[in-house]
Amino acid sequence: MPPPPSNLSALGEFPLIERLAKRLAQRGVRPAHGSVTVPIGDDASVLALPPGRELVATIDALVEDVHFRRGWSKPEELGWKALAVNLSDLGAMGARPLGAVVTVALPAETPVRWVDRLYEGLAECAAAYGCPVVGGDTVRCPEGITLSIAALGSVPAGKAVTRAGARPGDLVCVTGVLGDSAAGLALLQRRSRVPGKYASLTGWHVRPSPPVEAGAVLAERGLATAMIDLSDGLASDLRHVTKRSGVGAKVSAERLPISDAARRAGEALRVEATEWALHGGEDYQLLFTVDAERFPEVPPALGPLGVTATVVGEITRRGLALVGPDGRSTRLEPAGFQHFQA
Amino acid sequence: MPPPPSNLSALGEFPLIERLAKRLAQRGVRPAHGSVTVPIGDDASVLALPPGRELVATIDALVEDVHFRRGWSKPEELGWKALAVNLSDLGAMGARPLGAVVTVALPAETPVRWVDRLYEGLAECAAAYGCPVVGGDTVRCPEGITLSIAALGSVPAGKAVTRAGARPGDLVCVTGVLGDSAAGLALLQRRSRVPGKYASLTGWHVRPSPPVEAGAVLAERGLATAMIDLSDGLASDLRHVTKRSGVGAKVSAERLPISDAARRAGEALRVEATEWALHGGEDYQLLFTVDAERFPEVPPALGPLGVTATVVGEITRRGLALVGPDGRSTRLEPAGFQHFQA
Repeated sequence: MPPPPSNLSALGEFPLIERLAKRLAQRGVRPAHGSVTVPIGDDASVLALPPGRELVATIDALVEDVHFRRGWSKPEELGWKALAVNLSDLGAMGARPLGAVVTVALPAETPVRWVDRLYEGLAECAAAYGCPVVGGDTVRCPEGITLSIAALGSVPAGKAVTRAGARPGDLVCVTGVLGDSAAGLALLQRRSRVPGKYASLTGWHVRPSPPVEAGAVLAERGLATAMIDLSDGLASDLRHVTKRSGVGAKVSAERLPISDAARRAGEALRVEATEWALHGGEDYQLLFTVDAERFPEVPPALGPLGVTATVVGEITRRGLALVGPDGRSTRLEPAGFQHFQA
Repeated sequence: MPPPPSNLSALGEFPLIERLAKRLAQRGVRPAHGSVTVPIGDDASVLALPPGRELVATIDALVEDVHFRRGWSKPEELGWKALAVNLSDLGAMGARPLGAVVTVALPAETPVRWVDRLYEGLAECAAAYGCPVVGGDTVRCPEGITLSIAALGSVPAGKAVTRAGARPGDLVCVTGVLGDSAAGLALLQRRSRVPGKYASLTGWHVRPSPPVEAGAVLAERGLATAMIDLSDGLASDLRHVTKRSGVGAKVSAERLPISDAARRAGEALRVEATEWALHGGEDYQLLFTVDAERFPEVPPALGPLGVTATVVGEITRRGLALVGPDGRSTRLEPAGFQHFQA
């Protein structure tokens, strides 16, 4: 028997597509809401939305040496994350996953085993969130790997939560903790070996698990007046909300939910963990605003999902302010990552 | 007044996104079937499908120096083509366009003017096909440009045409002419300046106009038993159909619709134009099979759309055969482009 092909140039495109499609099909992932009528393997796939629901669509890419490094992420983690960051956007609209289509651009010398493992992580995330991969395109790329995934979901008609609905007096809430991902990245950048006590930080950075279901529940119960996923950092993402809603906000530094691990990492690296929470980015948590009178409904809605919600501030008429521990207010300036900047 | 920013690194990501979103919004493109509830600019976009229709989704990428060269395509042409090749896949399922989400990966030194022109072509194609760009992701990429577009459409429930429905006795038909794109590419590769008489060939290569509406009409009238878009070349794509349908096919070399321009280019370059028609790829025409008794309904269905349909062969029980002008049959082997192959 011939040895298995070592890299993509030895395998070829059509055998690769067949191999990956088989790997995905083995999982038999189905969406919890809606169905796949024509699966992967045709010109396009066909999906049925449940009645009374609208389609939600988003696309996001991960580029080698910009969004990830092969030395820091296992291929399984990369495959997981590429889908997870898109699901995070679905959740932020209040949508439930339906399916995803995937473009993978790879150099010809990429080992087949590496691509297998990439798809293993992709399939695992697809199964965990009930979001089958229903189509894809594998293309050669001369330099570096790019993963571009479009995630499709559905939301009850008229129930999608945009960035535009925040009103003065609404409370500003976030799910989970903030800054773990940035702390994890900082550790990967500055330490050749990251101690095991920081595994939760690097783990969230390379394999985040966005609270998609929480977003859907907040939308379906009409609790969130505005919502966004935290990908650029709280300061930057909150500004997207206030700008679009035509309001302002003040955030209390003391109220930011920061994990003990992130605080310890901050001390070790001499970085204020608050900076990670405000500007670090890649949290893939939800930021949402809620009418103060309805906030008491939030913990019982999210608790059963294992998701915590923390009030970090309030919507105001204008401006973006950070209130320090001493009660003094300073201007909160976005300082998150932007592509292309010198 | 400061001069306008010259490249993306001077402009930055958020101003770029705003610039491109504004450029797309100016066109005010709306889908003919369905509607956009939440447009570009939020975490994800929301789209409403018309009642009784299913969602059709596909993704395809164009990679610099693999799928295109900046020297051969104007940025407007590239923007057009990146969307058009996806719409071709929608048409091949019998779907009508609903919207598209776009990932553009660009080096930081890309001139802003170049990106403006890219989006100009994208917006033009979106307008021509009624397929609004409803979301996107602009990311930095260290080397070369990658465009990855997911196109979304809809088809009446149960009416999608797959590759799997061809039956022995069905006629094999193609729309338009075959080989123009491959002839155009061959001219670009071998001539520093391509004579104007070949403009239709290079023109189709850099800016194809797939007959999407024709695919939708064939599906809605239940005329096509199987359908695929011709992207890899007739031999290769027909094989996808026969393999999936569990049948064979024979194709008549004499019946292949080849333009006069492609024949003349073949003579000039000493290439058999039939080779381009069989193996060239990137035709972005439709290959479909139809019950012989119902074929007479095809020309009146497609004629009003300005689309011609040519019978090029017949579905058989097994094997893939090419019948030459002398009536002799040879095996038709796929020889189209495959990624990653050495």
